[in-house]
Amino acid sequence: MKVIHDLNEIYAQLDFVRCDSKRIGLVPTMGALHEGHLSLVRRAKQDCDVVVATIFVNPTQFGPNEDLSKYPRTLESDMASLRLAECDFVFVPASDQIYRKEHSTYVDPPSVSTRWEGELRPGHFRGVATIVLKLFQLIPAHVAYFGRKDYQQVAVIRSMVDDLNVPIRIETCPTVREADGLAMSSRNRYLSEQDRPRALGLWRALCKAQSSLNAGIQSVAELEAAMHSELLAAQVDYVDYATIVHPDTLEPMMQVGESAVALIAAKVGSTRLIDNMTLLPPIQRSNEGSN
Amino acid sequence: MKVIHDLNEIYAQLDFVRCDSKRIGLVPTMGALHEGHLSLVRRAKQDCDVVVATIFVNPTQFGPNEDLSKYPRTLESDMASLRLAECDFVFVPASDQIYRKEHSTYVDPPSVSTRWEGELRPGHFRGVATIVLKLFQLIPAHVAYFGRKDYQQVAVIRSMVDDLNVPIRIETCPTVREADGLAMSSRNRYLSEQDRPRALGLWRALCKAQSSLNAGIQSVAELEAAMHSELLAAQVDYVDYATIVHPDTLEPMMQVGESAVALIAAKVGSTRLIDNMTLLPPIQRSNEGSN
Repeated sequence: MKVIHDLNEIYAQLDFVRCDSKRIGLVPTMGALHEGHLSLVRRAKQDCDVVVATIFVNPTQFGPNEDLSKYPRTLESDMASLRLAECDFVFVPASDQIYRKEHSTYVDPPSVSTRWEGELRPGHFRGVATIVLKLFQLIPAHVAYFGRKDYQQVAVIRSMVDDLNVPIRIETCPTVREADGLAMSSRNRYLSEQDRPRALGLWRALCKAQSSLNAGIQSVAELEAAMHSELLAAQVDYVDYATIVHPDTLEPMMQVGESAVALIAAKVGSTRLIDNMTLLPPIQRSNEGSN
Repeated sequence: MKVIHDLNEIYAQLDFVRCDSKRIGLVPTMGALHEGHLSLVRRAKQDCDVVVATIFVNPTQFGPNEDLSKYPRTLESDMASLRLAECDFVFVPASDQIYRKEHSTYVDPPSVSTRWEGELRPGHFRGVATIVLKLFQLIPAHVAYFGRKDYQQVAVIRSMVDDLNVPIRIETCPTVREADGLAMSSRNRYLSEQDRPRALGLWRALCKAQSSLNAGIQSVAELEAAMHSELLAAQVDYVDYATIVHPDTLEPMMQVGESAVALIAAKVGSTRLIDNMTLLPPIQRSNEGSN
């Protein structure tokens, strides 16, 4: 596994790989890797000849009151995990190389960024879109892999790539969960012993939305009420949103029709968690949610 | 010369060319080609194995009261000129292919876009940065060529490319002028017979700035006054700005030191013209301005 820090070097090496007719898969991360990230690497290994992971805690996607400084940094164990997953390249740039002193160009993200996380975390998707576009320029990959846990982020990146004609295909992988259903997240390590069982409220509320739908409730207002009471029952501290929206536009809807996604953001202790579930219409329902 | 309209086809063909170890030069244009554009194609022919010109009148860089609808379209003669210049590929996309209905991602341009054209044409550089980034994604060129006539545009594109790590080198070519000094521009064809001699005021004012500097005047206020009186003498109808600024930041300055650029935008009849000259310190002065 080659570890590269320099911007010119990563581009030169991978441009060479690309022109050698090798298919390149990219897995952008902020480190603090868990099974979710590693599932992306394994999927990329299946699809591609060469897999590149990036580790960069991107400052421009954190708000002034967010957790940039305390965001977990676990570089040594990240490297060990990537080596084990047979990742070919790891790109670990320095912050002042990625954002030079004069940096002032940003990506103004697509309209799907406006609501939900975009509203609650002003500037977040501007930072995400900018760093992802930069990584897509530095690493001439064919495919990039993202986890569905960050549902709106994936929608923003897909729209950006289409709008700006970036020649990289976006693939998503299912959310990886703990045995009890909690979505894996680098931020889970912030949860105290008291927080951990309460954090399960998000998963329970998503399952409740699907089971209510299966029971014939199609009114979004009723489904959202069911999610909220499940979150309340789990003693989640604060619900930013628990909503059901159109899966592509992320716009609110009145009735669940063919397709919909349930999105939740909530605070447990001092930790802000997000999760989501693609809702299956009752008739197509398999044993599990497709998330 | 291959003429390509389809977005996927241009990328596929040039990705193939690129991986065949050919050096690709790109000349983005809005058509209505003149000797300035053709000098870029000839320069690209010298430097590269394969030259691609693009012809696309980009709607997003025109303001609501600007000349999008009447911007000159001379596709047939443009094609003849490009063929004569031995251009290898011409990319002529349809507007609804470049901007799909859902398009909503833009490049928020770098700080060098703020003043001058950016202030007088709100949204102009946002449109320029967005289309140029899109073309840089669609066409995997090694080098892109721009004319120095659009001085601030080149500065914006350079900064954007550096900030976003776009793997394309930006090269500039000197402004090509008519025999009497008027900078070539697709908009010159708007000039009436009465306008044409008055349009020369911009060139005269730039030359006046350099000759005043040669005569020992280093105060920007005095140099600007000299430019303004030259523009007035030429009976230019309206001066948007006639200024001397730092060549990289385009910020105003008090005294001309090592390096500076004079920028002018003015209206002659109903035609808005821009021009510029890189000012040489008197001691290094050659016979002509370096512009």
